[in-house]
Amino acid sequence: MAQQHLDPPTDPTAGPVTSDALAGYLRAQATEFLRSLRQHRETGAGAASGSAESVAAARALRRSARRISGSLHTFRPLLDTDWSEGMRPELAWLSGTLAREHAYGARLERLLGALNRLSGSAALPAQAAGANAHTAPKGSLTVGAAKAGALLDRQLTLARTRAHSAALQALGSSRFHAVADSVAVLASEVPLTPAAPATDLRPLAAAAADRLTDAVSALPLVTAGHPYNAEALVHGLSADTAPQPQDAPWHQVRLLLRLHRYARELMYGDECPTDVRLLAAGQALNRHRDAAEAAAASASAARTPRIAPATAYALGVLHADQRHEVEAARFAFQQAWQKEAVRTL
Amino acid sequence: MAQQHLDPPTDPTAGPVTSDALAGYLRAQATEFLRSLRQHRETGAGAASGSAESVAAARALRRSARRISGSLHTFRPLLDTDWSEGMRPELAWLSGTLAREHAYGARLERLLGALNRLSGSAALPAQAAGANAHTAPKGSLTVGAAKAGALLDRQLTLARTRAHSAALQALGSSRFHAVADSVAVLASEVPLTPAAPATDLRPLAAAAADRLTDAVSALPLVTAGHPYNAEALVHGLSADTAPQPQDAPWHQVRLLLRLHRYARELMYGDECPTDVRLLAAGQALNRHRDAAEAAAASASAARTPRIAPATAYALGVLHADQRHEVEAARFAFQQAWQKEAVRTL
Repeated sequence: MAQQHLDPPTDPTAGPVTSDALAGYLRAQATEFLRSLRQHRETGAGAASGSAESVAAARALRRSARRISGSLHTFRPLLDTDWSEGMRPELAWLSGTLAREHAYGARLERLLGALNRLSGSAALPAQAAGANAHTAPKGSLTVGAAKAGALLDRQLTLARTRAHSAALQALGSSRFHAVADSVAVLASEVPLTPAAPATDLRPLAAAAADRLTDAVSALPLVTAGHPYNAEALVHGLSADTAPQPQDAPWHQVRLLLRLHRYARELMYGDECPTDVRLLAAGQALNRHRDAAEAAAASASAARTPRIAPATAYALGVLHADQRHEVEAARFAFQQAWQKEAVRTL
Repeated sequence: MAQQHLDPPTDPTAGPVTSDALAGYLRAQATEFLRSLRQHRETGAGAASGSAESVAAARALRRSARRISGSLHTFRPLLDTDWSEGMRPELAWLSGTLAREHAYGARLERLLGALNRLSGSAALPAQAAGANAHTAPKGSLTVGAAKAGALLDRQLTLARTRAHSAALQALGSSRFHAVADSVAVLASEVPLTPAAPATDLRPLAAAAADRLTDAVSALPLVTAGHPYNAEALVHGLSADTAPQPQDAPWHQVRLLLRLHRYARELMYGDECPTDVRLLAAGQALNRHRDAAEAAAASASAARTPRIAPATAYALGVLHADQRHEVEAARFAFQQAWQKEAVRTL
């Protein structure tokens, strides 16, 4: 996995990219942050279940917070250290808090969709018309699947409601106001170091790309490229309730891919071309993360005391199904990554 | 899926294959049947658990019974109808009865192996040395996995013991002695029709090959060729306890592949070349059948009354794991089948 696997962040024949690009990008993201925040307040963020506009505003808020934080990290030598070191954890706290509500909702949707699929009720027309159509009418779930769905619904809806309250509380806290104030300052004046105007951004962006390719090269891509390697479920029945250690390097690549993508946005400016490879790879890693967390939620629900065996059985099937989604996502990532490498070489 | 996907059963430039080949093959298989039977009796078939020799003899007995039965089917126009129609169900009964004991043993072994794998106790050294090595020492199972293993062990060992008794009873029955007598007659004189000597075997062997290619072309090979299509688990939580209808066409292809293979043996005689494609395809279909039956056994064990939720959960994970094996076997079959097709075209 050499560097040629990634397009250079900018045209190498062009001149150096100056700190103006960084300042411009950060100002734009800060402005977007403040706009989303205003919109979020105006669209009734206080309601128990956010409206579509409020959800979109929260998403935009997270989006710009991640971009600011990522740029502070990738280009930190150009920025006032105290300020950027103080800012990053606050932005991470904010986007993490805001993300949680959405994540629980999406996880529940994913799991209920899987339960329906596994019950054959979301079957293809050809199958629904098949031999067992009379025993499994559309939309029907077995007792176990229905109970598992109800249990997950209860647990994840509760978690989502708590996350919603936590997000509202966060948005009203003095801690949040301090972040918003910092971002407001950033929108007008980026605290660059004295040496920043003379610093070329390209080596820093290239270093972010290198960190990504290094992390990818440490992934077990040969295994992932063999379909049905049964790797993701290896600890499916392990006594360990902690997140699966085998997932961590993939999650790490997901974060590094994001940092690389933000650096590209910053370097290319408005003309940033869509890299279908990064897009496909990023989507695969999002799916990897979502499936891994859904599998963990299913395993966790199965540890609820006094559930019926049929419920536990359905949760076991669901857990394994989601771990196979994890494996499928790794395969998809490997395919996406490999495809372009062939083209480039 | 055209006929060119299969090598012609014999060199088309050679002359017709006569009924001598059929008679010779049947006599040889009948002799082998009688030899295995003698060996089976001598190696203490009466013992509760068969010795290695007795197991090998039973396997050889089944092997020749299947070949005789298959040849009677493929080349039935050359054989005395009353005799061959009467013989085939008896041979099927015999090989089915003998196969059951072995099948239960193999199924238990497959399921216990999967439980170990899913518990990470058969992990690769790299993983065993990983972060969670301290929580999941080698060979350890969670309570649920251990209980599920014990339950499957109990159920399948009981089934196996019953199958063993049934096989012993069958081998001592007058029904079996009638089969053995028929095979003994076959070893010296094959009851051909008067028209048989003038009949070319090649069109009959080609028809067997055609039945196979037709059945393969009806399989959802495009879906099977897409890894992680999540098709095999579609009814994983269905209320239907009957065998999954989606498996049936694959089982059918498995049988037709076997008939084609026996026809090739018969036509080529001792010089029958190994067709790696048929071999790989056949192995994939055996794995498909074994995994499907193991998945069903796991689902069936989960319906045992009063099991603990942790046991049911482990059985759910195991069921899903084996259904993914089913999917993986379909993918392997598609790959094996497609590979040679490309070479041939």
